[in-house]
Amino acid sequence: MSLATEVLEGNRRALSRLISAVENHSPDGAAALAELYPHTGRAHLVGITGSPGTGKSSLVNQITLALRSRGKTVGIVAVDPTSPFSGGAILGDRIRMRDLSGDPGVFIRSMATRGSLGGLARATADVVKVLDGAGFDTILIETVGAGQSEVDIASHAHTVLVVEAPGMGDDVQAIKAGILEIADILVVNKSDDPRAQNTIRTLRAMLDLNASGQGQKKVSHHGQLVDVVMPPDASPEQDDLRWDVPIQATDALSGEGIDDVIEALDRHRTHLQDNGGLKRRLRKQVITEIDALLSEALLARLLERVDRSHLDALVERVVSRELVPQAVVEMLIDGS
Amino acid sequence: MSLATEVLEGNRRALSRLISAVENHSPDGAAALAELYPHTGRAHLVGITGSPGTGKSSLVNQITLALRSRGKTVGIVAVDPTSPFSGGAILGDRIRMRDLSGDPGVFIRSMATRGSLGGLARATADVVKVLDGAGFDTILIETVGAGQSEVDIASHAHTVLVVEAPGMGDDVQAIKAGILEIADILVVNKSDDPRAQNTIRTLRAMLDLNASGQGQKKVSHHGQLVDVVMPPDASPEQDDLRWDVPIQATDALSGEGIDDVIEALDRHRTHLQDNGGLKRRLRKQVITEIDALLSEALLARLLERVDRSHLDALVERVVSRELVPQAVVEMLIDGS
Repeated sequence: MSLATEVLEGNRRALSRLISAVENHSPDGAAALAELYPHTGRAHLVGITGSPGTGKSSLVNQITLALRSRGKTVGIVAVDPTSPFSGGAILGDRIRMRDLSGDPGVFIRSMATRGSLGGLARATADVVKVLDGAGFDTILIETVGAGQSEVDIASHAHTVLVVEAPGMGDDVQAIKAGILEIADILVVNKSDDPRAQNTIRTLRAMLDLNASGQGQKKVSHHGQLVDVVMPPDASPEQDDLRWDVPIQATDALSGEGIDDVIEALDRHRTHLQDNGGLKRRLRKQVITEIDALLSEALLARLLERVDRSHLDALVERVVSRELVPQAVVEMLIDGS
Repeated sequence: MSLATEVLEGNRRALSRLISAVENHSPDGAAALAELYPHTGRAHLVGITGSPGTGKSSLVNQITLALRSRGKTVGIVAVDPTSPFSGGAILGDRIRMRDLSGDPGVFIRSMATRGSLGGLARATADVVKVLDGAGFDTILIETVGAGQSEVDIASHAHTVLVVEAPGMGDDVQAIKAGILEIADILVVNKSDDPRAQNTIRTLRAMLDLNASGQGQKKVSHHGQLVDVVMPPDASPEQDDLRWDVPIQATDALSGEGIDDVIEALDRHRTHLQDNGGLKRRLRKQVITEIDALLSEALLARLLERVDRSHLDALVERVVSRELVPQAVVEMLIDGS
């Protein structure tokens, strides 16, 4: 029986093995992924991102428990682009495991950076496909931070949930158009903090500003007027769909607000289905993925044909500033 | 006179124009970059990264003022991978401008994400080359956050300065091996905060753990023992060079500790020169850059030859899960 068939039949050890094969780009992994691919497309893919200190992992735990109590199975992919090693991811994993271990309806996989960010985003996409094919109802893709890496990884999700914590927006730099752009649902965690209401108000003001689509506005931030520049067509897709980003207060420790988050997730998925948004997001992901795979394959094919010592000599000439990198690229392409 | 010659002669408006040309990947920009390239390699490239809220921008201002008072010219490239638009970057820029505007020995350029993270890292590298060729003594590459994107951008620097603030390490997730891996100098800003000493102690413990190079250890974090997994050869380059990462407390508002930061920057540069580290870092950057340019050029060449409607049809077959992306890649490569 093939590894993919075993996975489709619910074999958990086969699932772990298959994910490892996919992560390691082994030929077995590629074959199994191709076999699973027709079975994908059923799961709700939810990206969850937020800075360290927002209580994001506790929130993921609570969301998972709430989904489980509704009879849904949950796959969790915890991605840590901050750590080039598995240290951070393993750490988070152990803490999480205490609540969720032993539940056969939950599968958790931690991933750390493998060489490059592009590699991580692609490996994440493949692991998500495996879990989707394996039949998990909801797949939570958890990433730490709020950089472009998280935006890239979140782009594999149908619904992106951005977690903020009270007081995290006290710095002018923290008023980021970018992170609001990718959010389908905003969660202000640690709602027992007295500053929570203020954070919600600030986020609401930023969202309204965003939705108004005007070139430049002033927003009152802690009583201080600051200039905020917004591009006129910042989020055409969100505008198309007319989705009002909800802001939900939660307390991941007590579980307060979690039910509302689950309801918002369901509502957003229905909204995407009704508007063709699911297919639009998928098409964009497919194009990105083909581009990345093509570049990689073409580069590998070219480098196979180039003599190693010739390449080293060219690199040395760039290091000594005799050649620009672009010149080397042209020489390699013309010579191949 | 060519744009590059004007830049070499100190024309500021030409410098702005050239940077725009380079950012926009115009043929003029590529030609000018090739002309400037032999003049690069003199500047000290300093990456400065840290989460929002650490006071990183104020610190960059203070470092710039201190370098200026020592007669050095400073180029600042402020990169914001968080924002897909220029909003955030422009905001930071205005605040910064108040202190530094009007000084002909300072040149500031803000950059936001252009399409992809890879594109941003490459554009940043090119802008840094232009400023290097234009003769700036020190180039500060400022990025926000602590994700892989910042690691990628920081990899273009000779010296990486990571800024932390007191209390930011209170979350278990914030104990990141990754961010310590890339730091050549750690700065704990806001040294007037009573928690500063505790943050310095925690960072020192993490660094010692790292330097010990052992597989797994326990570190006391706020009285709680947590497992931290460290790879045995986490930072071979740092180990090779035997550089002890200094932790410097600063108060960017009062300027306290800034002189020590400048001294640490100088010391690190001398250290790299004495150990061949500068050349080693440059060679790694050159290889990364050639890889990225090659992939891009090869992809563009292939897509030129592929019929648009044929490509669209293939994408649709992946969207409907009839084909895996990998199969499309093979068809495109074989058919080309």
